[in-house]
Amino acid sequence: DDSKKAEMPVAASQCLSCHGTNGNPALKDVPILLGQQPLYLENAIRAYQEGRRTGGQALVMHEIVKDLSDADVKAIATWFGGTQ
Amino acid sequence: DDSKKAEMPVAASQCLSCHGTNGNPALKDVPILLGQQPLYLENAIRAYQEGRRTGGQALVMHEIVKDLSDADVKAIATWFGGTQ
Repeated sequence: DDSKKAEMPVAASQCLSCHGTNGNPALKDVPILLGQQPLYLENAIRAYQEGRRTGGQALVMHEIVKDLSDADVKAIATWFGGTQ
Repeated sequence: DDSKKAEMPVAASQCLSCHGTNGNPALKDVPILLGQQPLYLENAIRAYQEGRRTGGQALVMHEIVKDLSDADVKAIATWFGGTQ
């Protein structure tokens, strides 16, 4: 029932080109966010913000998330984790 | 149909206490592995092996996966990713 789905936070729009429009990516090396635990997603975004993940796509992720507010981080994590 | 499920690799047994017996954890800060993309899981394990993830549970993960062979890494990634 689409009417019950939470509205996508604006800040999540920049995630979609790699992670897919609902968090289910076409790219094989990109993690599925759909249904992932929100607290894990929140911690992962913070790790990318703070440069605690390196190599692979970590620099790309750092650039994308570095200026997100705490509220944006939580909103993104909750939305992707809850979209099932 | 359980008969069609792949057998768990022995090396995956050490993942279960945190990530759950089928990759669906009870702990809220631990990522769901069940159904995650195998290539992403493989890359993530290698990042933990090589110390490219720090903070949070990264040191725990490093200790657990540091001695896994390439074959073990692939087997674990494939098994969790394919368990749906």
